[in-house]
Amino acid sequence: MRTKTPRESRTVMTDMVLPSETNPLNNLFGGELLARMDRAASIAARRHSRRITVTASVNHVAFNRSVPLGSVVTVEAAVSRAFKTSMEIFIDVWMEDRFTGERAKANEAIYTFVAVDDTGIPTEVPPIQPETDLEKERFDAALRRKQLSLVLAGKMKPSDATELKALFTS
Amino acid sequence: MRTKTPRESRTVMTDMVLPSETNPLNNLFGGELLARMDRAASIAARRHSRRITVTASVNHVAFNRSVPLGSVVTVEAAVSRAFKTSMEIFIDVWMEDRFTGERAKANEAIYTFVAVDDTGIPTEVPPIQPETDLEKERFDAALRRKQLSLVLAGKMKPSDATELKALFTS
Amino acid sequence: MRTKTPRESRTVMTDMVLPSETNPLNNLFGGELLARMDRAASIAARRHSRRITVTASVNHVAFNRSVPLGSVVTVEAAVSRAFKTSMEIFIDVWMEDRFTGERAKANEAIYTFVAVDDTGIPTEVPPIQPETDLEKERFDAALRRKQLSLVLAGKMKPSDATELKALFTS
Amino acid sequence: MRTKTPRESRTVMTDMVLPSETNPLNNLFGGELLARMDRAASIAARRHSRRITVTASVNHVAFNRSVPLGSVVTVEAAVSRAFKTSMEIFIDVWMEDRFTGERAKANEAIYTFVAVDDTGIPTEVPPIQPETDLEKERFDAALRRKQLSLVLAGKMKPSDATELKALFTS
Amino acid sequence: MRTKTPRESRTVMTDMVLPSETNPLNNLFGGELLARMDRAASIAARRHSRRITVTASVNHVAFNRSVPLGSVVTVEAAVSRAFKTSMEIFIDVWMEDRFTGERAKANEAIYTFVAVDDTGIPTEVPPIQPETDLEKERFDAALRRKQLSLVLAGKMKPSDATELKALFTS
Amino acid sequence: MRTKTPRESRTVMTDMVLPSETNPLNNLFGGELLARMDRAASIAARRHSRRITVTASVNHVAFNRSVPLGSVVTVEAAVSRAFKTSMEIFIDVWMEDRFTGERAKANEAIYTFVAVDDTGIPTEVPPIQPETDLEKERFDAALRRKQLSLVLAGKMKPSDATELKALFTS
Repeated sequence: MRTKTPRESRTVMTDMVLPSETNPLNNLFGGELLARMDRAASIAARRHSRRITVTASVNHVAFNRSVPLGSVVTVEAAVSRAFKTSMEIFIDVWMEDRFTGERAKANEAIYTFVAVDDTGIPTEVPPIQPETDLEKERFDAALRRKQLSLVLAGKMKPSDATELKALFTS
Repeated sequence: MRTKTPRESRTVMTDMVLPSETNPLNNLFGGELLARMDRAASIAARRHSRRITVTASVNHVAFNRSVPLGSVVTVEAAVSRAFKTSMEIFIDVWMEDRFTGERAKANEAIYTFVAVDDTGIPTEVPPIQPETDLEKERFDAALRRKQLSLVLAGKMKPSDATELKALFTS
Repeated sequence: MRTKTPRESRTVMTDMVLPSETNPLNNLFGGELLARMDRAASIAARRHSRRITVTASVNHVAFNRSVPLGSVVTVEAAVSRAFKTSMEIFIDVWMEDRFTGERAKANEAIYTFVAVDDTGIPTEVPPIQPETDLEKERFDAALRRKQLSLVLAGKMKPSDATELKALFTS
Repeated sequence: MRTKTPRESRTVMTDMVLPSETNPLNNLFGGELLARMDRAASIAARRHSRRITVTASVNHVAFNRSVPLGSVVTVEAAVSRAFKTSMEIFIDVWMEDRFTGERAKANEAIYTFVAVDDTGIPTEVPPIQPETDLEKERFDAALRRKQLSLVLAGKMKPSDATELKALFTS
Repeated sequence: MRTKTPRESRTVMTDMVLPSETNPLNNLFGGELLARMDRAASIAARRHSRRITVTASVNHVAFNRSVPLGSVVTVEAAVSRAFKTSMEIFIDVWMEDRFTGERAKANEAIYTFVAVDDTGIPTEVPPIQPETDLEKERFDAALRRKQLSLVLAGKMKPSDATELKALFTS
Repeated sequence: MRTKTPRESRTVMTDMVLPSETNPLNNLFGGELLARMDRAASIAARRHSRRITVTASVNHVAFNRSVPLGSVVTVEAAVSRAFKTSMEIFIDVWMEDRFTGERAKANEAIYTFVAVDDTGIPTEVPPIQPETDLEKERFDAALRRKQLSLVLAGKMKPSDATELKALFTS
C-alpha cells in the first residue's frame, strides 16, 4: 500500500451552532461537538484507508472554551499516525465570532478509528509520512498515547512503555 | 452543603438504536453514543449539584463492542467523585439484544462536568460519599485520573502526581 | 412460556427537554412527549415478549402539568397486563425541576402494543403476574379498559362488558 | 366572539414517511404519527381560537393499519366541538401507496387542546357550528366523549352522564 | 397514459416554524424552506407520475418575505406542466400570523422533477391538461422557462428559443 | 470598507450522507442538499459582510448527478460578487466515492444573500476583488445573472439589460 500523508486525509467541516444544539447557557452542547468531531474524524480515517471505519476510542478531550449560539465552528481532522489496522486522528476545533470574525481555538481532540471489511473484521491501512513540523510532532506523540492507552487498558506492562516511563522517572 | 451519595445522582437513559443513528455496518455511530452519554452525564451532574453544568472533559473512552441497529441501549451515569467545582461522572453502557434480551456491557466512559452560575462562573458542589464497593473503587481511581489529566495538561509536575508515579516506578 | 412480572419489563428513559421540543410557552410539546412514551412503551413490550412489537392503541392521555424547557423528564414504562398477543403498558411520567430537584408527577398514559413475527402476524406473548399492590391494581383495571375499548370499537356489546356495566348501573 | 365552522380550522399536513421514522418492520413508528397529529391538531386549535394552544388530552387512538416506509401520509385535523376554553380536534389520517396512489384510511384520533394566554391561563374560545352531516355527527359525539372523560377522571358521577348512561342501560 | 390535471397532483403541507429551524433574526431559514418545498414538490410529482421522482432542478426562488418563528406555513405544490419524462412543479408558500390568522404569500418557487424506474432510468409521465386560468398561465410560462433553462445550460441556441427571444427583441 | 477577496469568504463543509437524508433510490434528497448549500452560503456571506445575512434568492440549480448513501459530500461556497447590500454566492458541490475516493463534481448552485442589521434592514457590504481566472469569470457572469433576475422579476426592462440582450440578438 502506498504511503500517504496527513494532508491527504485532511477534512474540514464548517457549520453553524443552531438553537437546537445549545445548553441552558446558550452554548454548544459538549455532546453535539463530540458527535461532529466523530463524523469529521470518520471521514478522515476513510480518506486514509478507503475502508469502512469505526470509532475505536476517544482520547482525553478538554472543553476549554464555550462556543456560543450563532458561532461558526470549523472542525479540522487529519490522520496523525497509522498503526497496523488503526489510525489516530487529530482534531482541531476553531470557532469564529459571528460579527468580528475573530477566530479562536476552541478544542483539540484525538480519536482512534479502526478500518474494517464488510463483516467488521479489522483490515490493514496504508502507512503515513508526516510532512510539516506540527504533523511530525503529533506523529511522535501518537506513539506515547498508544502506550498510555495500552497501559491503562492493562494490555501493556508500565515497565515496557519505554517512552511513557521516561516522563515519570526522569 | 449536605454530603450526597452516587445513588442520588444515578441517571438511567434507555432508548433504541434508530436507523438514522447507524454507520454503514448498521451499528450505532460512535458520535451518537458520545452525545447520549453527554446528556446522561449532564443530568447526573445536575442532580448532584443542582446547578447549570457544562462538559469540561471526556476521559479516554474505548468502544469495545459494536451496538447493532434495533438494540436497546441503556446509559447509566452517576457522579463518582466531587472536587471543588467539578464532578467526575462514571458512565456504564449496556446493550440488550432485540430478541434474546441478552444484556452485555458495551462501554464505559468517564466525563467531567463543572457546575457554573448563570454567568458561567464555576461554583462549589456538595461533597460525595461512596456507598458500595464499586462506588468506593471508582471514587479512589478518580483521584489518579485527575492527577493524570493535570500532568497531561502540563498543570502538575509528574513528580508531584504521587499515586500515578507509583504506577510506573514500582 | 414462562410467566413474567411487570418488574422484568420496567423501562426508564430519563432525558432533558431541549429547545427544539418546546411550544411558544417554552413547555414540552405534547406530541414530543407522546413520541417518547411510545419509544419507552415499545421497549417495555419487547422486554416482556422478546418479539417485534407495534403500537396498537393509545388510551386516554391527560396532560395535567406543563413541562418547562430545561426540565429533566423521566418516562417509566412497564407491562401492566398481558393478553393473548397484546400487552397493556402503563406509563408514568415524572418531571424534575432543573434547580430544586423537586420531582412531580407530570403524566400517566396507557398504550397497547401487539407482538408480531417478521411478517407482521400477531404472535403469543407470555402471561404476567403482578407483584406489588400498585401492579395488582393496574392489572385489574386493565381488563375494564379492554372492555371499554372493545365496546367503543363496536366489537363487544355493552351488556357483555360485565365489569364496565357495573360502573354505570350500580 | 364570532361563531366559526370546522371548515375554518381544517388543517392538511401531507408528508412522506422517511427512513428515520420507521420501526423494524419498516413501518411508521406509532410515536412519530402521534407527534405529527399533535402538530396538525395544534394548528387547527390555533386557527379556531387565535390563541396559544396546548395539548390537554389525547383520546383513545387505534392504529389499525401500518404505514410503510415511502408512503405519503395526509393528516387532516379540524375542530369538532368547542367548549368554554377547550376544543376537541378530530383527526383523520390517510395513507397513499407510493406507486398505485391508492388512498386508504390509516387512522382516526381525537385530541383536546386548551387555549391559553401568555401566562398559560385558560381563555375563552369562539363557539362552533358544524355544517356537514359528518361534522354534525362528530359534534354530537364530542359531548359523550367529554362525559366519558369526566367520569373516568372521577370529575362526574356516572349517573349524571346522561347520554353515556343510556349506552349501557338501554 | 391518461391525461391528468394539476388538481390531481395538488399537495398541501401545513406545519409550524419550530425554534430549531430559525436564523438569528428568529425567522425560518431559507434552507429549511427549500427542503420543505422539495418534499412537497416530490409528492406532487409522484402523484402525477406514480413513479419514483428525483429533483432535477430548482428554478429561480426569491425569498421576498421573512417567516417568523411560530408562524404556520402552508406549502402548496402542483404539477404545472409535464414534458416527456420531467415535470415542472409550481409551489406557492403561504404564511399565517400566529394570532391574527392573517394569511400572506411568502414565496413562489418552481422545481423540476424527473420520473425514474427502480434503476434510476428516466421514464415517461402522463400528459397534463390545465383547468383554471392560473393553471393555464403557468402551463404556458413553463415552456418559456424550459427554453431559458436549455439556453443557460448551453443545450439550445438562443435563436431557437422562439418564445424567449420575443421577450428581448420586441 | 476594505475590499475583500472571494478567498476570504471561502467556506468548506464536508459531511457524510446519512440514511435519514436519502430518497427511495438511496440517494441524497435534493431538499437536504439545498439546505446544506444554504447553510454554507450563509456562512460565506457572513464572512464577507460580518453582518447577519438572510437568503434573498436561489438561482437555477441543476441536480446533474445523484449522490449515493454513504458518500462524502463537500460543499464549497464563496462570495462571487458583492453588490450594494447583497452578495452572490457561488457554490460547488463535490462528492467522493466511499471506497475509491474518486472525487466528482455533483452540483453547482448560486444563492444570493442580503446583509441586514438587527432589525432586518439591508445594510452595506464591502466591495470584492476577484483574484483567480475562475473567480473573475464568475464575477463577470454575476452581473448578467443579476440583470436576468431583475428582468424576470419585472424590475428591469429587457431592453436595458445590455449584456443579456446581446445574448439573444447577436
